[in-house]
Amino acid sequence: MIPIGERINGMFLDMKKAIAAKDKKAVQELALKQKEAGAAYLDCNVGTAAEDQEAAMRWLVETIQEATDTPIAVDSQKLKVVRAGLDAIDNPKGCLVNSCSGDEDKLDLYIPMCLEKNASLIALTMTKEGVPQSVDKRVEIAANIIGKAAEHGMESPRLFIDPIILPINVPGAQAQPGYILEALSQIKIMTDPPVHITCGLSNLSQGTKERSLINRTFLAMAAAVGLDSAIVDVLDTELMDAWITADMLMDKQIYSDSFLKAARMNM
Amino acid sequence: MIPIGERINGMFLDMKKAIAAKDKKAVQELALKQKEAGAAYLDCNVGTAAEDQEAAMRWLVETIQEATDTPIAVDSQKLKVVRAGLDAIDNPKGCLVNSCSGDEDKLDLYIPMCLEKNASLIALTMTKEGVPQSVDKRVEIAANIIGKAAEHGMESPRLFIDPIILPINVPGAQAQPGYILEALSQIKIMTDPPVHITCGLSNLSQGTKERSLINRTFLAMAAAVGLDSAIVDVLDTELMDAWITADMLMDKQIYSDSFLKAARMNM
Repeated sequence: MIPIGERINGMFLDMKKAIAAKDKKAVQELALKQKEAGAAYLDCNVGTAAEDQEAAMRWLVETIQEATDTPIAVDSQKLKVVRAGLDAIDNPKGCLVNSCSGDEDKLDLYIPMCLEKNASLIALTMTKEGVPQSVDKRVEIAANIIGKAAEHGMESPRLFIDPIILPINVPGAQAQPGYILEALSQIKIMTDPPVHITCGLSNLSQGTKERSLINRTFLAMAAAVGLDSAIVDVLDTELMDAWITADMLMDKQIYSDSFLKAARMNM
Repeated sequence: MIPIGERINGMFLDMKKAIAAKDKKAVQELALKQKEAGAAYLDCNVGTAAEDQEAAMRWLVETIQEATDTPIAVDSQKLKVVRAGLDAIDNPKGCLVNSCSGDEDKLDLYIPMCLEKNASLIALTMTKEGVPQSVDKRVEIAANIIGKAAEHGMESPRLFIDPIILPINVPGAQAQPGYILEALSQIKIMTDPPVHITCGLSNLSQGTKERSLINRTFLAMAAAVGLDSAIVDVLDTELMDAWITADMLMDKQIYSDSFLKAARMNM
C-alpha cells in the first residue's frame, strides 16, 4: 500500500493560513505527523493560499524537506507550479507529480518532465471532454495513458492511474463507484508489471455525514480489485486500519496477531 | 444484502446451555435481537447441545417461530436433522437449508428436498476431497452445483453459493481470501439472474485478535465482487455499518445523509 498524505493542501483552512503566513512550524509538524502515520508520500498543494503559486510551491517544498525526507507529491493543475515544485526538490527521484489529465498533449508535456526528474506521475482517466461516466471510457483513457508512457519510455510502475472519484452525494453519481471498481480491475491487468492505481479518496465522501466510514469502506472494496495507492487522510486511524487489514487479506503482509502494529513499523 | 444471523448455534456457549436446558426465553430474545439488527434469516444450529439432534432441531425451530416470522436457515451437516427442522417449519417457503457440499450425490438429495419445501439452499464449493485451494477448482465446483440445480429445475436465485472461508491465521491460508474474491467474481456471472453468494464470514477471523475489523473489511471487499449474503454476527454494529455502506456504494441503496438509518428501517 502506498498512502499519499493529503493534508498539506491550501484547501484545508489550517494549511491555507500556514502557507499565507509562511508558518514553517505548522507545515513541518503536519509533515512529520503524516510521516509517522504511514504516509509514503506527502502531497503538497498550495491551493489558493498565495498569489504567486510558483513561489509558494517552492517555499512549501523547501519547508517540508527541511523536516523530513518522505517523498513529496507535487500537486497542482498548473504545469509551471509543478515545475517550480520539482525544481525545488533536492532529490526529485522518487517523488510524484499530481496530476496530469489523460489528454495526449498534456501527457506529451508531463511524461518527459517526469522522466527528466526521475519522478513518477499520477495520470487521471479524464480528458478535456470531462470525467467519463462509463467503465469503457475510463479504461480507454487509461489505455491511452499507458500507451503514451510506453511511447516515451516510462516504465509502468512509474505510472499511477487515478480513475477520478466523485462525491457520492451528487445526484446521478451513485453508479460511479461500481463503475470505478470494474474499471480498476481491467486497468490493473493491462501491463506487466502493473501500473499503480490511486485515487483522491476523500472526494468520495465530500459533503456527507459519514466521511470516514464511506472512505474506509470504499478503500477496502477498491483494494480488492487492484487499488494499491490512495491520497488519503493518513491521520484517520480507522481508515489506515481498514487498509492494512485489506492488504493483509490480499496476502501482501503476513498475518500475525499484531499485524496492525507490524504494518505501521514497516511504514 | 441478505444477512443471516449466526448466533442461534449450539457452538456458542450461551446457546448450547439454552438448547440443553430448553430455555425458550434465551433463544427467543436472541432471535428478536437479531431480527431487529437486520437479520433476513436466522441461522438455527443445535451443535452438540443435545444427544437427539433431530428433536433438538424441532424444538429450536418451533421456539424461534413462536417469537418471530423471520425465515429460518436450518443449519446442520446431517440430512436427517435438516429434514426434521424443515418439517417443523410452519411455512418452509422462503427458508434456507445450510448447507450441502458440492458432491453430486449430496446435491441429488438436497435439491429435491428444497424444491419439495420451496426452500433455498446454501451449497458449498467443497467436495469429499476437501476444500479446494485454487480459484479454478472453486469455480468448477460452483459450476457443477449450478448445473445440478438446473437439472432439477431449481431457479438460480434459490441457490446460495458459499466459497468456504478458512481462518486467516492458519499457516498457508493467507492466499485464500484473494482466491475467493477472484472465484466470486467469476461465479457471479455464471447465471442470469445470478446466484446469491454467501459465506460463513466469522470463520475468517477465528482465533484472531481483530475479529470485527477483519470480518468487516473482508465483507466490504467481497461485496465489491458480488457477495450479497453472509452468515454474520448481525449484532456487530460496525460490521453492519460497513456492509450497508458497501451496498450503498454499489448503488443498491439510494444515498442520503441518513443512509444507515434508512437501511435499517428497511431491514
